Amino acid sequence: MKIIPLERIKEILPSLDLIPAIETGFVAYSQENAVVPPVGELILDKGEVHIKYGYLKKDDYYVIKIASGFYDNPKLGLPSSNGLMLLFSQETGELVSILLDEGYLTDIRTAIAGAIAAKHLAPKNIERIGIVGTGIQARLQLSYLSHVTICKEVLVWGRGDIQLVKYKIEMEKQGFNIETTLDTAEILQKCNLIVTNTPSATPLLNASDLQAGTHITAVGSDTPDKQELDSALLKKADVVVADSISQCMGRGEIYKAIQAGHISSDDLVELGAIIAGTKAGRTDDNQITVADLTGVAVQDIKITEAVYEALS
Amino acid sequence: MKIIPLERIKEILPSLDLIPAIETGFVAYSQENAVVPPVGELILDKGEVHIKYGYLKKDDYYVIKIASGFYDNPKLGLPSSNGLMLLFSQETGELVSILLDEGYLTDIRTAIAGAIAAKHLAPKNIERIGIVGTGIQARLQLSYLSHVTICKEVLVWGRGDIQLVKYKIEMEKQGFNIETTLDTAEILQKCNLIVTNTPSATPLLNASDLQAGTHITAVGSDTPDKQELDSALLKKADVVVADSISQCMGRGEIYKAIQAGHISSDDLVELGAIIAGTKAGRTDDNQITVADLTGVAVQDIKITEAVYEALS
Repeated sequence: MKIIPLERIKEILPSLDLIPAIETGFVAYSQENAVVPPVGELILDKGEVHIKYGYLKKDDYYVIKIASGFYDNPKLGLPSSNGLMLLFSQETGELVSILLDEGYLTDIRTAIAGAIAAKHLAPKNIERIGIVGTGIQARLQLSYLSHVTICKEVLVWGRGDIQLVKYKIEMEKQGFNIETTLDTAEILQKCNLIVTNTPSATPLLNASDLQAGTHITAVGSDTPDKQELDSALLKKADVVVADSISQCMGRGEIYKAIQAGHISSDDLVELGAIIAGTKAGRTDDNQITVADLTGVAVQDIKITEAVYEALS
Repeated sequence: MKIIPLERIKEILPSLDLIPAIETGFVAYSQENAVVPPVGELILDKGEVHIKYGYLKKDDYYVIKIASGFYDNPKLGLPSSNGLMLLFSQETGELVSILLDEGYLTDIRTAIAGAIAAKHLAPKNIERIGIVGTGIQARLQLSYLSHVTICKEVLVWGRGDIQLVKYKIEMEKQGFNIETTLDTAEILQKCNLIVTNTPSATPLLNASDLQAGTHITAVGSDTPDKQELDSALLKKADVVVADSISQCMGRGEIYKAIQAGHISSDDLVELGAIIAGTKAGRTDDNQITVADLTGVAVQDIKITEAVYEALS
């Protein structure tokens, strides 16, 4: 049994080709070749814990992920996110590896899902990337987009100048040209590939600002309460994509838009079906596409397997 | 973060006072001072995995237990049961300890629950202990009964002579006087404290053989399919005890007896309420009592905490 600490995971990650690995996971999920039971949830006074688990039928392993958010941790000098990944043999049930990733692989697999959504749904010519939010996920999303687009022009929205300046300094080191704004309307007016990365409970992007030929990936909302996109925006979209249709019926932007009567479940296409080519995604550069990513265990499964196999 | 291997767990266990620790868990559960979400379940071609998790509100930790059964493993020279326990801080969500118990603590906490049931429900004078089954749990149940009764006279039932001889040799080394039988009727006729420990899907003990003044703890059935006791036997019982009323409504002997119309949920008393003294258990040595143990996460929580605290 191999115990893999966070430093080893961080060392090996840049050498891994994770986009095709996680694409395989989404395809298996949409083709019902993955077994992904409902998410386990534990609510505590100071935080919450989610247990995501399952396997791809053709793989050697099953994976159990434990991820927590404890929101007072920063006051104690600790990160709010934490967790680990456990890899077991499908053949014998034996524990094969413990990845002590402290929540890092969840951040990475979420960013990779954003890159996959952009790869399959963004218009051909990306003029400017719009990033909503300035946290860890807003950084990782932009970093991983460089795997699927050569565009380096970025407009980022944040709640305050300090966060924006920090974001600009850090991401320009990675080769991006970063402009900043305090007005979300500018994001929709100037960018045709947009990623939203906040825990907002009220919409930040309004349908009235939406331009033809835009793709938006909504990453921040993964609960029934959070919402980053005006629901009318999903009605205007030509294609609305869910990472998991069943999950998005109960949480995230799609849930909110269905609740508001703007779209119905018949309007949804699953990301894995677009990757597999069995359903159409964007068919025209003037279309508007929206992908809602709420996080599916197949992402955790494939990234855990990839890290373990690279280190064994 | 402390990783505790199985050998260290086995070394420390005999020094721990686990009966009161697990009694505290049952009491907290029955008083709704424990948070225990529904069990997570993953079904694979060759086995199944259960995830039990939760916490006691007044404790420092929460616990996630992963336990698997892969039934072809013995053909490969591997045990069918496996698993591990994870201990986290309720305050920060940080992983505090990984107990690589390989399913061993599940066996032990199950045996301790049997001792607790006997402590609170068996008649005062135990003439002979009846053990149904000859596997690991049939051994551990008898071992742990020595914490709550001085009786050393035992009659054990098994499916074949080889298993019975092995059981007799091994348990006589622990100071018990073991007789064997191939007839379950004899168990009911000659023993007044009986523990059933098989994965049987058809009843092994018949109501017609039941004597006054008997206590039976049913350990083997923890699914809707398994059944060791004739359901009519629960109808004859003066007190029917569940480790978890809600869980026993859907699995185990109580589930079968309710399905058969022999008892109703109103007839059930929870083990934690008897331990706390808020509900009556046995009130007379001539009564018949039955305890159905299906396994509750509070047992896993308390044994994990006890092992960790003893080693830290």
